[in-house]
Amino acid sequence: MTVSGATPRFRLLVQVPGPTQDVWRRAFAAALPEAAVAAWPDVAAPPDYAAVWKPPVELFERCPGLQAIFNLGAGVDALLATPTLPAATPIYRLEDAGMAEQMAEYVTLAVLRAYREVDAYAEQQRDRIWQPRRRRPKAEFGVGILGLGVLGQAVAAALQPFGFPVAGWSRTRRTVAGVTSYAGDDELGAFLAGTRVLVCLLPATAATVDLLDAATLSLLPRGAEVVNIARGSLLVDADLLALLDAGHLARATLDVFRDEPLPATHPFWHHPRITITPHTSAVTRVDASVAQVAARLRRLADGLPIGGRVDRNRGY
Amino acid sequence: MTVSGATPRFRLLVQVPGPTQDVWRRAFAAALPEAAVAAWPDVAAPPDYAAVWKPPVELFERCPGLQAIFNLGAGVDALLATPTLPAATPIYRLEDAGMAEQMAEYVTLAVLRAYREVDAYAEQQRDRIWQPRRRRPKAEFGVGILGLGVLGQAVAAALQPFGFPVAGWSRTRRTVAGVTSYAGDDELGAFLAGTRVLVCLLPATAATVDLLDAATLSLLPRGAEVVNIARGSLLVDADLLALLDAGHLARATLDVFRDEPLPATHPFWHHPRITITPHTSAVTRVDASVAQVAARLRRLADGLPIGGRVDRNRGY
Repeated sequence: MTVSGATPRFRLLVQVPGPTQDVWRRAFAAALPEAAVAAWPDVAAPPDYAAVWKPPVELFERCPGLQAIFNLGAGVDALLATPTLPAATPIYRLEDAGMAEQMAEYVTLAVLRAYREVDAYAEQQRDRIWQPRRRRPKAEFGVGILGLGVLGQAVAAALQPFGFPVAGWSRTRRTVAGVTSYAGDDELGAFLAGTRVLVCLLPATAATVDLLDAATLSLLPRGAEVVNIARGSLLVDADLLALLDAGHLARATLDVFRDEPLPATHPFWHHPRITITPHTSAVTRVDASVAQVAARLRRLADGLPIGGRVDRNRGY
Repeated sequence: MTVSGATPRFRLLVQVPGPTQDVWRRAFAAALPEAAVAAWPDVAAPPDYAAVWKPPVELFERCPGLQAIFNLGAGVDALLATPTLPAATPIYRLEDAGMAEQMAEYVTLAVLRAYREVDAYAEQQRDRIWQPRRRRPKAEFGVGILGLGVLGQAVAAALQPFGFPVAGWSRTRRTVAGVTSYAGDDELGAFLAGTRVLVCLLPATAATVDLLDAATLSLLPRGAEVVNIARGSLLVDADLLALLDAGHLARATLDVFRDEPLPATHPFWHHPRITITPHTSAVTRVDASVAQVAARLRRLADGLPIGGRVDRNRGY
């Protein structure tokens, strides 16, 4: 509790796995001096709101009166899979909150690494070979972004100054300056055919699970690369490996996996053309995330509209 | 010769080593239909202007009446070292001409590779270690650019959207938006002390030879990285190796060398913390370079002022 004396304006419960929960609680308490901020499992006073990340099933059983739930991440797949989640309570997810810049870094690095042939030059260096390589025209080096939400648009904006043709694909059509827009199942094939580096930023939903399988990945041109910074469930591991080994795909840069940590026996670890990072493409920033949720909580308490509302039918 | 019938407005001699000379000659002829364009050693009709890259000493002996010399690159160190170069003829060098975007790519790639710890994660992957690493605050990840001309400013502009603090050092003070400016010998130490990734873009002159030696490189903070995309003569190879091996410097990314091609026996080739590219950070683009020189030639023939004039005393 952070309020003594005056009646708190509302009660917020904070839940984050592991030892950082107290960091989050203190940051929320500092940002919301008018509120009573408690940390799970302290629900002696029933909270009005909860800010959570991968909550235990007991949480919602013990907090029946929540007016809204704030997901402390952009992806709500784990939250929506919680069986005790109340059916009617509005859910909000983080938008950007410091993640967009990090994802722009990650993708720009992967695209420049591909375009400037870092791996081929490293191989030449190993053999002491001084041999300039023909640079591919940028017109032939299209970057295709699956998912054109806040993060996808930030990635597109980061790539544009470098002159790469940028296309985006989304469920419903999005108009983004400088981005060639594709939408829906009908246009997925045309989108993939023009994509040299595929960047997956889609939410994990019933509609996107296994989306990147042999059928879709084969539609990428020969020599294409895959960057997955969304969720491991979107990609069929065996199909990716088969297309890499067949030479159809040149490389994959993977930050997310079906099982995390990636099991030590998984073939991805030692594949020469797979680059692995341990789900670090964008880490949640406590300051920016707390600032966003705190501002939304205040607007909500004032009866004002806020962004980030999750559509449970869509799954994001 | 490309002009038949009418008298040519002026005569241009094109000289580029190797088989691409004819590509250049044809591009100049197409861009300048009013001129007579010949390729070295065809100097039967004495040229008014020459567009050259690393010219043979005979060229200037056989072309005594040149009104101006255009260097088909940004660096004029090779041209100025030509013993037969006429003392009073104005020299112009390429500015940008497609190189700025390429250098921005190269440096952004090197900076993001350092910031996102690509090499440390690759090592972890080799050992199947799933371990997120603490991200350094960007405020502690200053990029310092030696040389704030057209190319240095383009590199600075490419890094700014990613939030890196960018500083620049130049002989005389330059004011560039968003770039902390240092100038002259007196401020070199302060500039280096705040630089985590040092990017060398200085021209090779009597004043810059051996600039990056043990004394200056030691002023970089421990863990700093060096990116040299200017000229090999600016860097003292043995001093760089000593500071890498002592652990003071973390990595070097080198595109230019004292001897090119880099000799097979040079220790840079197999150093685990040196990345080598074969002078490909920015290749000269025929189209953009010819367009720039052709536009300048026309203005010159009209008696108008043009950019890119080399100050022989400065050496660039």
